[in-house]
Amino acid sequence: MAKIAVLGYGTVGSGVVEVLSTNHDSISKRVGQEIEVKSVLDIRDFPDDPIQEKIVHNIDDIINDSEIDVVVEVMGGVEPAFTFVKKALEAGKSVCTSNKALVAAHGPQLLAMAKERKLNFMFEASVGGGIPIIRPLNQSLTADEIINITGILNGTTNYILTKMSNEGSDYEVVLKEAQDLGYAERNPEADVEGFDACRKIAILTSLAYGSTVHFEEIYTEGISNITTQDFKYAQKLGYVVKLLATSYKKDGKVYAMTAPFMIESSHPLYNVNDVLNGIYVNGNVLGNVMFFGAGAGKLPTASAVVSDVVDCVKHKGTNVMTVWSNKELELGNTEDEVRSFFVRVKGSLDDLTKIKENFGNVKTVTVDGIEGEFGFVTEEMTEKEFAEAAKNIPMISRIRIDKTVFS
Amino acid sequence: MAKIAVLGYGTVGSGVVEVLSTNHDSISKRVGQEIEVKSVLDIRDFPDDPIQEKIVHNIDDIINDSEIDVVVEVMGGVEPAFTFVKKALEAGKSVCTSNKALVAAHGPQLLAMAKERKLNFMFEASVGGGIPIIRPLNQSLTADEIINITGILNGTTNYILTKMSNEGSDYEVVLKEAQDLGYAERNPEADVEGFDACRKIAILTSLAYGSTVHFEEIYTEGISNITTQDFKYAQKLGYVVKLLATSYKKDGKVYAMTAPFMIESSHPLYNVNDVLNGIYVNGNVLGNVMFFGAGAGKLPTASAVVSDVVDCVKHKGTNVMTVWSNKELELGNTEDEVRSFFVRVKGSLDDLTKIKENFGNVKTVTVDGIEGEFGFVTEEMTEKEFAEAAKNIPMISRIRIDKTVFS
Repeated sequence: MAKIAVLGYGTVGSGVVEVLSTNHDSISKRVGQEIEVKSVLDIRDFPDDPIQEKIVHNIDDIINDSEIDVVVEVMGGVEPAFTFVKKALEAGKSVCTSNKALVAAHGPQLLAMAKERKLNFMFEASVGGGIPIIRPLNQSLTADEIINITGILNGTTNYILTKMSNEGSDYEVVLKEAQDLGYAERNPEADVEGFDACRKIAILTSLAYGSTVHFEEIYTEGISNITTQDFKYAQKLGYVVKLLATSYKKDGKVYAMTAPFMIESSHPLYNVNDVLNGIYVNGNVLGNVMFFGAGAGKLPTASAVVSDVVDCVKHKGTNVMTVWSNKELELGNTEDEVRSFFVRVKGSLDDLTKIKENFGNVKTVTVDGIEGEFGFVTEEMTEKEFAEAAKNIPMISRIRIDKTVFS
Repeated sequence: MAKIAVLGYGTVGSGVVEVLSTNHDSISKRVGQEIEVKSVLDIRDFPDDPIQEKIVHNIDDIINDSEIDVVVEVMGGVEPAFTFVKKALEAGKSVCTSNKALVAAHGPQLLAMAKERKLNFMFEASVGGGIPIIRPLNQSLTADEIINITGILNGTTNYILTKMSNEGSDYEVVLKEAQDLGYAERNPEADVEGFDACRKIAILTSLAYGSTVHFEEIYTEGISNITTQDFKYAQKLGYVVKLLATSYKKDGKVYAMTAPFMIESSHPLYNVNDVLNGIYVNGNVLGNVMFFGAGAGKLPTASAVVSDVVDCVKHKGTNVMTVWSNKELELGNTEDEVRSFFVRVKGSLDDLTKIKENFGNVKTVTVDGIEGEFGFVTEEMTEKEFAEAAKNIPMISRIRIDKTVFS
């Protein structure tokens, strides 16, 4: 019998308890012993829930309980999670977490602490919810030099963009709907401004290259400025708009970005819709591989957390090494990145001279019913060249274009 | 420095040597030490290849070499691979293999031998080439009861079916083309008759349920009877034809089959084309997850083999437990499986009475230029009911329909 504690009885925490109960038999078979939730930390009481008898209000009741081998941290946020996780590791307990904020902020330190003590610090659920991506990146794609990781890593924004695309609805309307359905938080900033996806690509990039990418250094743009007009242009061009979190290696440098991109139908993430997540990985010998599935939600996320618990129990006494050092990975300069851009500009197609002077050859596009402006797609140019050229035209907005092809 | 030996210097074997050399630095960093190929077993000599100095012709030169920790078996076929792998394990060496015939025939025995000796027997490359699927199934989806695994697991047949679909070419023509391109063997039976895919789904199903599914017990049909006419009907219906290897749990029983299926555009494997493989997994708490990528090929397969080598070296002295017992999993009877069928039948739409008498409601379909016959799609019925009903009509052929939806 292995005993565990759960920190936080919210959506994911209650999901963990539910999964361990629902699949008790199959999990015991895989682990070789039973797993029991002994304590659950929460500031609240749950008088009508059988969990109440396991509720504790003081973290020390868990830290000082020598029967507890594994601590599941699903509170979210950096503090007090960070303090609690450190205490758990110091007390000789392995830790599994779904908390991307914690992992993005302190991953290498917590991994090092676990390694020193022959414990494990696992975080499969922190990226891609139920989709196995941390373990594959860490254990399966080890023969490869990773060249590109591009993902739709946030279900909320993907739901909003899919709805806007399919129904032609405005951003504000769809956001409200997503909030009513519980897909978006009342304060949606972390999702819609790209911060959540940015933390996740920081984690994946750090694992891919074994050094630390600070999420604060990743250029990040959200979707709150995307309009129905943008989708009409996109449709005319055969594109969709997706919030991509991407990192890639070029000429020895790693570049990373989170931003809305237009992608065409040959793009591996084109069909990843609604709340689904998709992650494309290119390795220098593997070639292309794709993972997709439910990127969030109570049970899929809990499934990933519990798979980590299973691993921790099976590997008690052995650190399953993860290469993620404290050494910083210096990212390439965003200004040097090369891509095409879709641009909306005031005026009419008669005004192309100025556009061509600044952008060279462009492909223009107009949409019935959108007056006083037109769109164009540039050839490939650096972000810096684009920014310079854009100063000279009455630009309304621009969306980057990602040309990843699954071949 | 960890030293390894490679059994077989064919496509995959030379790929393994190449990957270890190309990515020497990144692999050493991940493992924490260098990996060196010390010996390569082959009956041939390679006088113009620097590998020659490592070539040995006698397996005992490897078995008796105490410096060699890990043996890579990439010869294919059950014998002598089985004998050599047993010898290696008995001599205290972990084994990594890409050999699905060996794993499907003797997986649990070799896993047990490895476990007893605190060694590892790994076979990531045996299913899905470079796509990580064995390790995710074995280590990531451990919180779930697996409900459904459905895959396009054979690149050769997927290439042939994609070509037939896109170009309207005949099976024999496309097969010849695939052989000329090296995508199909001169003797293509193992691929086109579904035997290869069948072994792979036997392995995945065994891992999902922890007991042994004998591939001989899985109902298997190949693609050699699929015609251009079938694709014309499929197109009219909005379907494509794919060779699926599938297993699923229903009312406590596991059913498995390898056969051509018609699938519609909402099916998760609809867009998996050419030589790509795709694997859909449904877990009771995880929901849907999909993996896809290059299912074969020298470097993708070698990438998966080398990831196993990395794992074996990192876990020297520790068995990374895989739950796959010798206990047989009794499969449900194919006759009881319920699905719809697409049927081609001699006659004209005037002859529907007999069809309706036997099949109830059907949806008919005709194709311009295909005379003297028509097609229809049945409602759901058991295989047994279908077989009975089909006896009473002038049936030309039938293709099963799979309705898996990624929701």
